Amino acid sequence: MTVGSVVFPEMPAISTIKLNAVSAGIKKNNQLDLMIIELPVGATVAGVFTQNAFCAAPVTICKQHITQQPRYIVVNSGNANACAGEQGMTAALDCCKAIGANASVSHEQVLPFSTGVIGEPLPADKIINGIPALLAGLEKTNWLLAAQGIMTTDTCAKGATHSFEYEGETIVVNGISKGAGMINPNMATMLGFIATNATVTQDVLNVLSFNAANQSFNRITIDGDTSTNDSCILVAAAETMCVVDSSDSDLYRLLENAVNHVYTTLAQAIVRDGEGATKFISVQVEEGATANESLQVAYAIAHSPLVKTAFFASDPNWGRIVAAIGYAGIEALSVDNIRVYLDDVLIVENGGRSKTYSEAAGQTVMNQSEITLRVCLGRGDAAETIWTTDLSHEYVTINAEYRS
Amino acid sequence: MTVGSVVFPEMPAISTIKLNAVSAGIKKNNQLDLMIIELPVGATVAGVFTQNAFCAAPVTICKQHITQQPRYIVVNSGNANACAGEQGMTAALDCCKAIGANASVSHEQVLPFSTGVIGEPLPADKIINGIPALLAGLEKTNWLLAAQGIMTTDTCAKGATHSFEYEGETIVVNGISKGAGMINPNMATMLGFIATNATVTQDVLNVLSFNAANQSFNRITIDGDTSTNDSCILVAAAETMCVVDSSDSDLYRLLENAVNHVYTTLAQAIVRDGEGATKFISVQVEEGATANESLQVAYAIAHSPLVKTAFFASDPNWGRIVAAIGYAGIEALSVDNIRVYLDDVLIVENGGRSKTYSEAAGQTVMNQSEITLRVCLGRGDAAETIWTTDLSHEYVTINAEYRS
Repeated sequence: MTVGSVVFPEMPAISTIKLNAVSAGIKKNNQLDLMIIELPVGATVAGVFTQNAFCAAPVTICKQHITQQPRYIVVNSGNANACAGEQGMTAALDCCKAIGANASVSHEQVLPFSTGVIGEPLPADKIINGIPALLAGLEKTNWLLAAQGIMTTDTCAKGATHSFEYEGETIVVNGISKGAGMINPNMATMLGFIATNATVTQDVLNVLSFNAANQSFNRITIDGDTSTNDSCILVAAAETMCVVDSSDSDLYRLLENAVNHVYTTLAQAIVRDGEGATKFISVQVEEGATANESLQVAYAIAHSPLVKTAFFASDPNWGRIVAAIGYAGIEALSVDNIRVYLDDVLIVENGGRSKTYSEAAGQTVMNQSEITLRVCLGRGDAAETIWTTDLSHEYVTINAEYRS
Repeated sequence: MTVGSVVFPEMPAISTIKLNAVSAGIKKNNQLDLMIIELPVGATVAGVFTQNAFCAAPVTICKQHITQQPRYIVVNSGNANACAGEQGMTAALDCCKAIGANASVSHEQVLPFSTGVIGEPLPADKIINGIPALLAGLEKTNWLLAAQGIMTTDTCAKGATHSFEYEGETIVVNGISKGAGMINPNMATMLGFIATNATVTQDVLNVLSFNAANQSFNRITIDGDTSTNDSCILVAAAETMCVVDSSDSDLYRLLENAVNHVYTTLAQAIVRDGEGATKFISVQVEEGATANESLQVAYAIAHSPLVKTAFFASDPNWGRIVAAIGYAGIEALSVDNIRVYLDDVLIVENGGRSKTYSEAAGQTVMNQSEITLRVCLGRGDAAETIWTTDLSHEYVTINAEYRS
């Protein structure tokens, strides 16, 4: 069950980007668990990776291989290959070598990703056995199949697309993602793979990738945990005549808009499919002195178990929101200048409950499944928005009972 | 239901410290909701208060009055008098004035405290009406009654005592506390009131109070939230001939030991009575480069909903613990040097699962209701311990359904 609808869109093909997914026997019951994306010679590739010190073996390898003109992205689901010591590095490299040998490229041109259980040895042999079938079925129309191949606790495949015209060419941005908690080390992680047919120089792609991830995948939180495997990759297939070689051009801004749209849709789909989520909550903090302090307040609210359980109960328990703002660690915060709104309903002003507030008005907003919680700090003009979920019985059930 | 037993001890009287509690009609059903402690002339008083920017009106007043030779501590439960704007300040001051008038002291010698619902106006008239009976019943033997008078969602009264002999005198430290979440702004907060018969100079008492709170009340977390009302007060009644006027003496060390014992017992009782708690977990981080980084790792683990739900499920899901260590934000953390133990069972070493680890051994520890999770960072010799609980269905129920 997702909050709101998460529909996998019709994805226009990008002619040089081919995808496939098969069942290699890592998951049970012949579920899809091995996915590949083939990139053309000349594509540029950029990525952002987890900051977790226990980053998984494939993440370490990806960071090295991404500068070696990547030709293949390969993802297994069902096993995270994380905290697996030396054996984990060897297993991930063996998979890269098998693709290299089968596809006649260097193993350094393969980017490996894993998502699933932490601390179990990766069954590299199953992956290697699956590679011939995986390569044989590559098709440019397989976006949905690829999205299905990387799912773990996700209840639906996640995709997004956005196109625009520029000087007679159609520029397409397609993406898929997976994840149902920021982390669920048993069987999850957040992964995103986005590709465009545009021709984009490496420097510009790096900026695009960093900024887009920052305002999308880095603005969602379900439980505040950061996975060992989180990765998001942006590929520019270099099919178009027009070249994006500067971040100061109309074409750049059009592409940035399309890329941001795809990233944000994919990131929000992860929240909508969040473990046990019954609400989709936008936490919008405005009038901060800096972007950083606006984010600090937003995360304090979004991570508070008391705020999250109140949202689950549809309880306009604004004292919990105010308490979270108060302990966010903002220096010299003047509470008298703060205003708090649930959608358009003003709840708090002048250090206490607004005279215009009624419990009935707050209750009406709380009963919705999609809610914007807006906090005006009265300190400046920096605004930030993050997206989160409530904390439900189902969350505890999923995470307490998963392995039993 | 508490985790382990929380027994209210026999409290030896401190002859000049008198206490009482009555029902003033703030809570329903004639429950105790107004408590007072009388302090002798010449007592020294020190305290630590919430860092929350939305601190409650009584906290603001306490910080001013604590330097004015306090004679009374007055606490209402059932209403936090927080986020109540100007009206909240007036109501708290009115209560101080009523005590001042009835007891013939300056209203500035009264320290007010409130705990309960946030954002509701404090019924100062009910408190003021209750004051004559409150003062009339002051007795030095009323420690248990006083502890009962400050309870909110607590399931039991919390007290601790420790005595020692010094040069023919018996030095006593008594304390009471309340709280069942670090915050539950509907009906909670953490409060501690500790008194000794010892004679302690103000400077030394400030150090004692700060250090004791720091290694006890500042080392517990249930949900990571910080209340608007948290306060902890240490009173030295100045009954003894021996004077503690330096922090470099045998007497100081004996007193420090007794005070720390009482603070720690009171703080741990709050965790044992934590909302929905089924486990009492000591998170012990050793071999940190600094105390601060050891604490950072401990809190990352203790605040992780995934770790907490795994403890609830008695699931030795060590990947979640390792992931939390990894995202704690420690610079240049070398995962190969980290060891993780559940009690004495070594789980993780050399960047992965220990060769000596078996799921059965981990399961045996996880089945206990009291567990020590020990992390050795391999970076230095700084060690810190904090105490926390699991995250249960009951936690969600209590916090989602409280107002309905």
